Amino acid sequence: MPGMEFFKALKREADTRILLFVADGLGGLPRERGGLTELETAKTPNLDALAAEGICGLLDPVAPGVTPGSGPAHLALFGYDPIEYNVGRGLLAALGVGFPIQHGDVAARINFCTVDDRGTVTDRRAGRIATDLNRKLVEKLRKAVTIDGIEIFIDTVKEHRAVVIFRADGLYDKLNDTDPQATGAKPHAVVAADEQSKKMAGIATEFVDRAAEVLAEEQPANMVLLRGFARYERFPTVEEVFGIKCGAIAAYPMYKGVAKLVGMEVIDCGQEPEDEVEALEQNVGGYDFFFLHYKKTDSRGEDGDFDAKVKEIEHFDSLVPAVRKLNFDVIAVTGDHSTPALLKSHSWHPSPLILWSAYERGDECDAFGETQCALRGGLGRHRAADLMPMILANAQRLEKFGA
Amino acid sequence: MPGMEFFKALKREADTRILLFVADGLGGLPRERGGLTELETAKTPNLDALAAEGICGLLDPVAPGVTPGSGPAHLALFGYDPIEYNVGRGLLAALGVGFPIQHGDVAARINFCTVDDRGTVTDRRAGRIATDLNRKLVEKLRKAVTIDGIEIFIDTVKEHRAVVIFRADGLYDKLNDTDPQATGAKPHAVVAADEQSKKMAGIATEFVDRAAEVLAEEQPANMVLLRGFARYERFPTVEEVFGIKCGAIAAYPMYKGVAKLVGMEVIDCGQEPEDEVEALEQNVGGYDFFFLHYKKTDSRGEDGDFDAKVKEIEHFDSLVPAVRKLNFDVIAVTGDHSTPALLKSHSWHPSPLILWSAYERGDECDAFGETQCALRGGLGRHRAADLMPMILANAQRLEKFGA
Repeated sequence: MPGMEFFKALKREADTRILLFVADGLGGLPRERGGLTELETAKTPNLDALAAEGICGLLDPVAPGVTPGSGPAHLALFGYDPIEYNVGRGLLAALGVGFPIQHGDVAARINFCTVDDRGTVTDRRAGRIATDLNRKLVEKLRKAVTIDGIEIFIDTVKEHRAVVIFRADGLYDKLNDTDPQATGAKPHAVVAADEQSKKMAGIATEFVDRAAEVLAEEQPANMVLLRGFARYERFPTVEEVFGIKCGAIAAYPMYKGVAKLVGMEVIDCGQEPEDEVEALEQNVGGYDFFFLHYKKTDSRGEDGDFDAKVKEIEHFDSLVPAVRKLNFDVIAVTGDHSTPALLKSHSWHPSPLILWSAYERGDECDAFGETQCALRGGLGRHRAADLMPMILANAQRLEKFGA
Repeated sequence: MPGMEFFKALKREADTRILLFVADGLGGLPRERGGLTELETAKTPNLDALAAEGICGLLDPVAPGVTPGSGPAHLALFGYDPIEYNVGRGLLAALGVGFPIQHGDVAARINFCTVDDRGTVTDRRAGRIATDLNRKLVEKLRKAVTIDGIEIFIDTVKEHRAVVIFRADGLYDKLNDTDPQATGAKPHAVVAADEQSKKMAGIATEFVDRAAEVLAEEQPANMVLLRGFARYERFPTVEEVFGIKCGAIAAYPMYKGVAKLVGMEVIDCGQEPEDEVEALEQNVGGYDFFFLHYKKTDSRGEDGDFDAKVKEIEHFDSLVPAVRKLNFDVIAVTGDHSTPALLKSHSWHPSPLILWSAYERGDECDAFGETQCALRGGLGRHRAADLMPMILANAQRLEKFGA
């Protein structure tokens, strides 16, 4: 498969504008065998019209059978091979709280946990403490845990989860998790798997020891476990690789963070989908490419609430007319991954896709749905990372390869 | 994806004969949304019958979204990964004029241009001079530009375009273009990007300086720009990799050249498609595999003449009965890439494909067209480089992999 260097050499300027409209976790499953999915159940006249005019297909976020997290799923939609450009858990947690990550930072997830007086873990999640308590503990750690020569940033995520970012020269991330993955065991010591990660191992060990002292009198969260050490190495940006100036419109911090990772500019907007569309309308002249993110289709899938997900899809559909009025040259509508209510989680199923432009062939889709995309879609099934080149081709932003 | 070494180990002899029948730029687009493509519009009873008997699908020349030049597009059909076996612009120009390229030659495209008396480029194409004037200038350069110890070959391509081939030991091609890509600038100096290319940089600099002296009094073409330095390194041949003796029948030099690159024997033929078919009839016993090339489907697409492309496709179709009489075991009919009249250029859209043999499954295609191939074809959508193994398998020319 062609890589970033390949596309860098092909990028071409054009006076065309592109919209990538993502309904998070869009794809789904029928409630029971033989039924309709959430998308097929929803009344989506605007998406159906777009599907009928455009060409449809399916996207595998990573590869067949692989269920992705939100990070890799979005990176793939942005044209990045999600296996090569892997974003570690710590880094995603930092993006998720909107932390302005810098090249060379090492981030790790913190789980507050409970240990007994011999240091043995008795609850890996400290009874899923309330987020408010988490904030108080984070505040305490911020004040009391300092290490000479290292900048340390700590942020609450939710319940028992927090994130820590270490900033200094020469920090690397080949470190094990301290989480023993079972109660009745002591936290693992931090050990570096290579020479260059030894400095970070020392720092992490000191951090854990200091945190243990600071939290000793707390209950139930009297200790921390660290997971998913991840160093941020600057990604090539969408502008460098594909030659497009990209604006990202997303209400949730995680998606803003992933967009920033690839050099998109995050456009301020309110929390509601209508606010996002308004931000799009106000900025439409300022960018070549927009990433517009709709969150709650995924949330309702995660809740396992089929009907509520149907309603969110209908809400998503209702935004399409305003978006179409903006006269984009190319519109792609898809999910980053599937989140079937039946599974209450992300899944491996490919995402339905509409690719709309003046330069695509037709097919036989007259409605937007997973089975229509599979059986009547003219595009076929592709890796999600192949979408960006198809979009750019339709926007006449790729040079011919070879003479 | 399996590479050349993989297939080398699997090749098997068989008494079967194969035809790869390529209509250049076959795939297209509807004139307007919801309409038929050129191929779908054309009356093609013979191709329709072949499609109904065989199995159909789609081929991406390089990868989804990537528009290929003729070189990579044909290499892919011959089973070569077109990214790994990249053919530079200079080399393709040399092939295009039928130059007998040798291992180690470095070729570059020449653009005749106009410079003012300060050496600033005022027209990068010298007003697209007539090809006759080009020939006279090339003759002048051939006589006057010599460099000790180097063989230099110069040939006219068309209008302002020519090609130069440098032959000597130790020539490499990591050199920049001298074309400044804009008027009002001086040509770039030739600079080597690596140590081993320095010899070639010196030669190219001397060539440009001598050419400038020779052309000084000419108008409007008083200077040359060099582009696309490319060294020819011998490719593994189709015989070495796939064990097939291949004959190439093509009226145009470029396609003969690409066929020679992979070790096919070029069979003499006249300029008309009927001449090509006659050459096929006369040589049918002499080769395992034939590449038969039909050019004008692409030419009419490049012209933007939808109706004329339809007529060329009908002409292509009319050749099918004569070809079928020759009792090939496997026939593949496809394009090297798409050339929609709507775009007046090569495009990224996948090529429709018929694979006809006694050993393929059926599908629901009853006519040959892009949408039929996409929606009713049994083969699905593949990279073009995967066609050759499918052809060879059908010709029973591939051993089992593993026990």
